[in-house]
Amino acid sequence: IEKDLQATLCSGEGSGNKEAFRQAVSNTLERRLFYIKSFNIYGGVAGLYDYGPPGCAVKSNVLAFWRQHFVLEENMLEVDCPCVTPEVVLKASGHVEKFTDLMVKDEKTGTCYRADHLLKDFCNDKLQKDLNITAEKAKELKHILAVLDDLSPEDVGAKIKEFGITAPDTKNPLSDPYPFNLMFQTSIGPSGLIPGYLRPETAQGIFVNFKDLYYYNGNKLPFAAAQIGQAFRNEISPRQGLLRVREFTLAEIEHFVDPQDKSHPKFTEVAELEFLMFPRELQMSGESAKTFRLGESVAKGIVNNETLGYFIGRVYLFLTRLGIDKKRLRFRQHLANEMAHYAADCWDAEIESSYGWIECVGIADRSAFDLRAHTEKSGEALVAHEKYPEPREVEVLVITPVKKEIGLAFKGNQKNVIEALESMKEQEAMALKADLESKGEVEFYVCTLGKNVTIKKSMVKISKEKKKEHQRVFTPSVIEPSFGIGRIIYCLFEHTYYTRPSKAADQQLNVFGFPPLVAPIKCTVFPLVQNHQYEDVAKEISKSLTAAGISHKIDITGTSIGKRYARTDELGVPFAITVDSTSSVTLRERDSKDQIRVDVKEAASVVQGVAEGVRSWADVWETFPHHSKNKKKKEKSI
Amino acid sequence: IEKDLQATLCSGEGSGNKEAFRQAVSNTLERRLFYIKSFNIYGGVAGLYDYGPPGCAVKSNVLAFWRQHFVLEENMLEVDCPCVTPEVVLKASGHVEKFTDLMVKDEKTGTCYRADHLLKDFCNDKLQKDLNITAEKAKELKHILAVLDDLSPEDVGAKIKEFGITAPDTKNPLSDPYPFNLMFQTSIGPSGLIPGYLRPETAQGIFVNFKDLYYYNGNKLPFAAAQIGQAFRNEISPRQGLLRVREFTLAEIEHFVDPQDKSHPKFTEVAELEFLMFPRELQMSGESAKTFRLGESVAKGIVNNETLGYFIGRVYLFLTRLGIDKKRLRFRQHLANEMAHYAADCWDAEIESSYGWIECVGIADRSAFDLRAHTEKSGEALVAHEKYPEPREVEVLVITPVKKEIGLAFKGNQKNVIEALESMKEQEAMALKADLESKGEVEFYVCTLGKNVTIKKSMVKISKEKKKEHQRVFTPSVIEPSFGIGRIIYCLFEHTYYTRPSKAADQQLNVFGFPPLVAPIKCTVFPLVQNHQYEDVAKEISKSLTAAGISHKIDITGTSIGKRYARTDELGVPFAITVDSTSSVTLRERDSKDQIRVDVKEAASVVQGVAEGVRSWADVWETFPHHSKNKKKKEKSI
Repeated sequence: IEKDLQATLCSGEGSGNKEAFRQAVSNTLERRLFYIKSFNIYGGVAGLYDYGPPGCAVKSNVLAFWRQHFVLEENMLEVDCPCVTPEVVLKASGHVEKFTDLMVKDEKTGTCYRADHLLKDFCNDKLQKDLNITAEKAKELKHILAVLDDLSPEDVGAKIKEFGITAPDTKNPLSDPYPFNLMFQTSIGPSGLIPGYLRPETAQGIFVNFKDLYYYNGNKLPFAAAQIGQAFRNEISPRQGLLRVREFTLAEIEHFVDPQDKSHPKFTEVAELEFLMFPRELQMSGESAKTFRLGESVAKGIVNNETLGYFIGRVYLFLTRLGIDKKRLRFRQHLANEMAHYAADCWDAEIESSYGWIECVGIADRSAFDLRAHTEKSGEALVAHEKYPEPREVEVLVITPVKKEIGLAFKGNQKNVIEALESMKEQEAMALKADLESKGEVEFYVCTLGKNVTIKKSMVKISKEKKKEHQRVFTPSVIEPSFGIGRIIYCLFEHTYYTRPSKAADQQLNVFGFPPLVAPIKCTVFPLVQNHQYEDVAKEISKSLTAAGISHKIDITGTSIGKRYARTDELGVPFAITVDSTSSVTLRERDSKDQIRVDVKEAASVVQGVAEGVRSWADVWETFPHHSKNKKKKEKSI
Repeated sequence: IEKDLQATLCSGEGSGNKEAFRQAVSNTLERRLFYIKSFNIYGGVAGLYDYGPPGCAVKSNVLAFWRQHFVLEENMLEVDCPCVTPEVVLKASGHVEKFTDLMVKDEKTGTCYRADHLLKDFCNDKLQKDLNITAEKAKELKHILAVLDDLSPEDVGAKIKEFGITAPDTKNPLSDPYPFNLMFQTSIGPSGLIPGYLRPETAQGIFVNFKDLYYYNGNKLPFAAAQIGQAFRNEISPRQGLLRVREFTLAEIEHFVDPQDKSHPKFTEVAELEFLMFPRELQMSGESAKTFRLGESVAKGIVNNETLGYFIGRVYLFLTRLGIDKKRLRFRQHLANEMAHYAADCWDAEIESSYGWIECVGIADRSAFDLRAHTEKSGEALVAHEKYPEPREVEVLVITPVKKEIGLAFKGNQKNVIEALESMKEQEAMALKADLESKGEVEFYVCTLGKNVTIKKSMVKISKEKKKEHQRVFTPSVIEPSFGIGRIIYCLFEHTYYTRPSKAADQQLNVFGFPPLVAPIKCTVFPLVQNHQYEDVAKEISKSLTAAGISHKIDITGTSIGKRYARTDELGVPFAITVDSTSSVTLRERDSKDQIRVDVKEAASVVQGVAEGVRSWADVWETFPHHSKNKKKKEKSI
């Protein structure tokens, strides 16, 4: 019930509530060192954070589960590539040219802002606060918000001028917007001649290794490669705390597949899952996300293909098992203007937080774009082969421009004409052939010249020839699930946080209700009172827990048991063992506060069972005697 | 036996042998994608390597064991800080000023070289190849090699000129040597005004967080913090393959301890360990490393203190459990000229490889240097407190300059004089007081003015006063074990690699004899022949292995069983299950090639037992029937 209240509080429309909730979570996270502002003693650096001990443990657990759930389960090929990347790689990928945000500068102080953020804030503010706004004006502002990502620097600049937007801190005028590349730049080697960048994503390291990985996989498709590692984005003005940072951990999968067959053998395993999806159509018509059955979404073509659907299902399972609230998780399809031109389809796993719906995982069918880009730039063919059981006879189109004739006719333009002729598709070429045969000459559009030229029958030979082909050579498509680990963890913090009154009802206590899977420590052990016998028992149990591989902590401070429970709840430790006799101990579950009695010798193995998910707490609760001191009548939660 | 031969081959003096061995290991590593030259399709970048799938798995296993062996076992506080670091932090640590190598440039082509490497190569070459060298000259060259690290840029430049050393590739003249900072430089934020670097080590992230971590630990010493992460060094001209790279994974521990008590409660657990140590004295007298008992080394003061000794012992256990050959592992103490001035003692775990003895772990008592440096630069006191059981009365020196008198006498210089007076140590102050009382005035040296001034009795009051102190405030010492994970892994590759003849004795087969702990995959499962019944059994066993958390691979290719064994040996997979019936299967151990028969239902749990080290292979060999097809008489190895 408390959790539901919390969910309501957080998802409630009142932004004051959201901010108060966020502040409460942040205070607890910072005080317990889940994270720390990096280089804090020097004033910190915007957008850089450390994970302190419990945060670091949560992160390790999330990554370990990611490896198990994706890499091991699907036999993915995991690789580990450097962060420092030479420019040539990121030129091929398009990052050097296009990985930019529009920036404006305060013309007096030089402070930098993201132009689109200023424009967005202005529009939102006006729409929310200006009560006298005309319907027409409101429509215009809403339109700007909808097409913001498509606006050119000039358009954004014109709007900033038109609306009189100034620097938020000083009200000074702003410069014209210009694109700022978000990659951290550096130089490799001592000569200063090899420009490099810190990678903005881990994916490129996989693409450039495609040939080796394909070979490693026995030259068979489909297969997936995966990488966990740091990525870097030199954000113009980081805000939203842990959600928009300059260095972060990405976990990325590149699943290579035959573009003619995107079925997935294990799709049936996820087809029955039902969860919130937000397809393009619903967004366009102003509706909300709805619950869909995944199998149906794929069957109806809402999700482009089975492999994409399979990963959407696996991502859903991954996030909910971590402890993300499924009521505040949706899969949103990219709108046409959000998606890269080459992408076949793209869905974001969005998690609702106090900052709104946050993109935490992107699952995109990027078609053959990346491998083609690197093939072109490097000259190394990143392709797959499919051997035919027996050679096939195929008809191939052969276009042979007669260079001498074309040269005489078109002189300096001959190359353009030849290229245009050679690049004709079958239908066009056969039509041209027919026309030439019937008319002798034909008007032909050369796009690189931007005009028609007259092609005569003597200038080109077009025919179809039979050839034997032994294999099909093609560029695989890639389906890319990409996980922002830090964002997932932050949303997990918000989703699992709740408060409850202390026993004396004089204060609210903080709890992180982490599932045991991600809890930083699985169990706390404390002697009820400071005495050697109890401490020895605590040490004995600790040894058994270590042997069982269960992370835990002994707390032998003399503070009251209530305070020690509060402390351990605040770290999200799911189980606590209180040593209150030398033969048996009390085992308490965090969320229900249920307490049972267990033999000292059995304690570690019971904790191991529930911590590793082999056994449910309900089952343990049925099996063992309940702690008697707890006088109030218990109602089992689930 | 084969392993011993390999060891002899490798450690043999013949450099040809070493190179052939290294080439054989590298060929296997590259072919099986343990590692890949980064960005290979673009020609690669010197000093950057990827881990391919098996290499990445070995690395994960090494790091997981590191976490278990150090972080969990000692309850260390693990943190995770960014790679991008603002300049101020690395100025405080001394890296901006001192983290340099001496560089020379080819005066015509601009190619860069490390000056010390050229000088070293020249001396070594001369000593080895010049048969007519005089005893005097030989002595001079040996002296240069011994003091190389202490030479100034001018000295190195003079020697390069004197010996006529030219650019190795072109024989062109070289520039004068100058220091080149090895940190990759970048800029944080869009303004270009915050200079930053990629961290050259992970340690600084821990030091700057000392205050928070100390608080997290209940304001108690000793405690250790740990961090695993990427570090970066922009090497001038990387060589030695995987050993000297520009980006690498470090695992570092900072153990904070009271400088007055460096004992360690768990030292007895490692005191009886015996291994090769190479103390300063043995190195100076030209002797070799010898076997020492660790307890004795600490007792005799060869190792500075118990805590340092404890970590040396734990590092020894860590490395040997990974599979590092203890005969080719030594702990070498730094010579006085190698050690930073503030360091109390420093030992490197060096592992012998085909490149010679390689520093893989540094274990240093860095005293209070780092915390003091950051205290000074940041103004934040990074100190610990020890509460006295009851307050102590102490005498403190009180120096009170009489500002009016000093101002009148020294005008513009008054501030320098006041500072000089206030910074006097006890002895000097008391002497001054006595002199003033007897003579009335005294000549006093003010270093910031560079001259003596006359101080009169009226200008300063000096006294000793009694004060009650409730606690001791001090800067903790830090003991830092720092692990180069990539170097350890490379040495592990060399130490576990061996070859053995194929069954037909027509070729040598490669084996990586990884202990199960680090093996990239624990088990391969293959049906003896391609048939559905066997494949179903293989899948059933695979499911049980997955449930048991044992990484494995099914190989259903139709290749011969011998070839499949060879393939799995080359990846260092310790166990292989051949499905040759539907009721029981053959389980083979990699190094002994022993084969036993196990029930299908039991197979996964037997593999789990030996893979997790709960059970030895010898024990399994005793328990189960031996595979009968193997006609040759078996001799058990161990």
